[in-house]
Amino acid sequence: MASVPSVSYSITVRLEVPAGGKAVSQITHVVENAGGIVTALDVNTAGHETLRIDVTIATRDTEHAESIVAALERIDGVAIHKVSDRTFLMHLGGKIEMQSKVPLRTRDELSMAYTPGVARVSLAIARNPEDVRRLTVKRNSVAVVTDGSAVLGLGNIGPEAALPVMEGKAALFKRFAGIDAWPICLDTQDTDEIVRTVQILAPAFGGINLEDISAPRCFEVEARLRELLDIPVFHDDQHGTAICVLAALKNALRVVGKELRDVRIAMAGAGAAGSAILRLLLHAGAKNVVVCDYRGAVHLGRDDLDDSLRWIATHTNAEGYAGDLRGAVKGADVFIGVSAPGILTGADIATMNENAIVFALANPEPEVSPDEAREHAAVVATGRSDYPNQINNVLAFPGVFRGLLDAQANGVTDDMLLAAAQALAEVVTDEELGPNYIVPSVFHPEVSSRVAGAVREAAGGRPRTEA
Amino acid sequence: MASVPSVSYSITVRLEVPAGGKAVSQITHVVENAGGIVTALDVNTAGHETLRIDVTIATRDTEHAESIVAALERIDGVAIHKVSDRTFLMHLGGKIEMQSKVPLRTRDELSMAYTPGVARVSLAIARNPEDVRRLTVKRNSVAVVTDGSAVLGLGNIGPEAALPVMEGKAALFKRFAGIDAWPICLDTQDTDEIVRTVQILAPAFGGINLEDISAPRCFEVEARLRELLDIPVFHDDQHGTAICVLAALKNALRVVGKELRDVRIAMAGAGAAGSAILRLLLHAGAKNVVVCDYRGAVHLGRDDLDDSLRWIATHTNAEGYAGDLRGAVKGADVFIGVSAPGILTGADIATMNENAIVFALANPEPEVSPDEAREHAAVVATGRSDYPNQINNVLAFPGVFRGLLDAQANGVTDDMLLAAAQALAEVVTDEELGPNYIVPSVFHPEVSSRVAGAVREAAGGRPRTEA
Repeated sequence: MASVPSVSYSITVRLEVPAGGKAVSQITHVVENAGGIVTALDVNTAGHETLRIDVTIATRDTEHAESIVAALERIDGVAIHKVSDRTFLMHLGGKIEMQSKVPLRTRDELSMAYTPGVARVSLAIARNPEDVRRLTVKRNSVAVVTDGSAVLGLGNIGPEAALPVMEGKAALFKRFAGIDAWPICLDTQDTDEIVRTVQILAPAFGGINLEDISAPRCFEVEARLRELLDIPVFHDDQHGTAICVLAALKNALRVVGKELRDVRIAMAGAGAAGSAILRLLLHAGAKNVVVCDYRGAVHLGRDDLDDSLRWIATHTNAEGYAGDLRGAVKGADVFIGVSAPGILTGADIATMNENAIVFALANPEPEVSPDEAREHAAVVATGRSDYPNQINNVLAFPGVFRGLLDAQANGVTDDMLLAAAQALAEVVTDEELGPNYIVPSVFHPEVSSRVAGAVREAAGGRPRTEA
Repeated sequence: MASVPSVSYSITVRLEVPAGGKAVSQITHVVENAGGIVTALDVNTAGHETLRIDVTIATRDTEHAESIVAALERIDGVAIHKVSDRTFLMHLGGKIEMQSKVPLRTRDELSMAYTPGVARVSLAIARNPEDVRRLTVKRNSVAVVTDGSAVLGLGNIGPEAALPVMEGKAALFKRFAGIDAWPICLDTQDTDEIVRTVQILAPAFGGINLEDISAPRCFEVEARLRELLDIPVFHDDQHGTAICVLAALKNALRVVGKELRDVRIAMAGAGAAGSAILRLLLHAGAKNVVVCDYRGAVHLGRDDLDDSLRWIATHTNAEGYAGDLRGAVKGADVFIGVSAPGILTGADIATMNENAIVFALANPEPEVSPDEAREHAAVVATGRSDYPNQINNVLAFPGVFRGLLDAQANGVTDDMLLAAAQALAEVVTDEELGPNYIVPSVFHPEVSSRVAGAVREAAGGRPRTEA
């Protein structure tokens, strides 16, 4: 469904063209005819005979990029020197680094930051363990932990291949909340080992962000670590998503003038994200939810219920609806999908209640075409950045951890998640609110600090101090 | 033995004094009388009646600092407002941070550094696992791993209290070799668990620096990890020390005109550092070594030999000397101590061979007073920064890891350690070499790069490239 050229598939082509001819003027034309977009054109060597030109082109995907390069090659007199992929260039050597915050220019500075001076600081912490949050990076650090089992939509690609994603996550933590996160990619997918490893490496971190660990192991990993550790443990795929969905839903309901406790909600997806969204919706007051997985509605009469599905069956679907998703959507006020592409059509959305709300969050291809959904629903949101109302976890996790770290919280509660969702929703003012603006931009300058403030307060919030 | 005021025990005292009187002129006088050194005096508020002054004072230790503050308090009209410890101030909030190397200003940049763009980078690594060293921070990252069991001279203070030291180490890695190190403080001291945990978290790191893990567990942890991992594992307390000692000894022998293969060496200390030094000395060609621990010379006739001591007994002390350290030192050309304070006197050093070399490395108090040793030995080195010839691991570990990472080495060999020691020794030119200059300053600009070059070459050195 990547039908639009995107900068994330952007290439830079170095080519040589005759200085005198019309080759230069053909380049942009040829690229556009081939469906690409020229975003930059730099002549970097101009000789008498030839010009060397770097052309940067947004393409749809790798195949499309190759076809554009082939088209350029067919221009008379053009020679292709090198094709670089901008995304890969950006990743060379990694996206994050460690920096020292203290100067180490002189022997005096060395002897304060390291031996012998540091010994007194270590002794102070040995005597008063709470000081570790005052005198070390633990105060501001989060481990981004994955086992590489469910990375983005790529599946079980392992810990090394997951590292670029975890580095990106760490970079986002810094960019949006000033947090020092470091990626920890585990070479095991055994639940017991994951739990024990994270427990063992916890002392130097102020929080644990679990990432891209497949269900149902992620539930047990998180639950056990929350029991074992005195720092917050947060599985972003679950709770980050749940916070964003609840915030967006609160605002969508403001748009259509309905109340959460009154609406009928049909959900598709009972995995990590789905079950976390459900729990937070119920905690926020939703009363009437039906959850479907690929076998249809989850209800107590099914013979395939594991612990997680049984919990869902017990807390939803009071009427015992046993049909499929299509039937569940009929007459519903809200559809929330965190499941699979293209499982609903515009016609299905047309069967929903008036002023329907559709969150089709499967990525990159949503549960229903946003364009078709928009014909029948009042508010449509997706996980994609090329439509309005993108439900993006970046809206939640940086602020949530900022708040947890500032409060020196020992754990995460549902009330903190609720407070985060409420704060995120409130960033959108009544004046701004509309069917195409139910969540703020990820670059909205107040998102992280307002979410952080709400979480800090819910955590029993010691006020933030610099030292 | 901290008899000299040191910046690592430096305090800043804020005090208020009458503007008109002679209190100001008394401050420096009073501090000096109390044995401190005023290193800065800033008047930060000057009123009609009073002045507010920040005085920074180098002191000997905490007790001394308190006595100086008390002396200041006794000056007529002086009021003490606040006493800050400069070392603690430097540690507030930690000494290191994570930084993003990529800009995240726009949605386009987000979609290259994170989803959806990052997915292609992850897929590339999944297809070609070697690419993880090209496209991620693994290329340049080292885990600084401790269990907090033998931190500096402080002993078993645990993982949290060890964190300031590991942060300092990480800062040194960056300062001296541009390496991105991150502290991992383990909440276990079980050998099996340490090994398994480091193995599990290895994928995101290009090297493992073990730090401050007590003997004999450190031997097994290192040996097993070297078997298990395809990245270099280096226990700095062992091999970093060994490299520095061998380099210093090579140069000391140049000073006195003796050869390593000919000299008789008496060592005190058979722990982590001692056994690593011994192994490297033997690998470098030393033939005649006697090692003593607190029970005297290590020889095959002893009934308390564990694996490590048995190895030592088998490879040293061919004559089966069974006496004490004092006897071992008699007639020796070289004494190397990595043991306990004050176990030898100047009179013992006087019994050594002519042109004796004494490395008394116990810290902070050496095996023999450097001043006494100097009366009888040709070359004296210590671990202290307030004497010439400081044997400081900072001379070795940054360059060693720089070389290992640049070579994308899968392990560390004795030949690499030997090459590092040789390169470090050669930084001191014939012109510079002398009894008080056998090792370069830690701030010598070429130390790290020359050590790195030698290690890279010994590692079968792919040349260093930027990408």
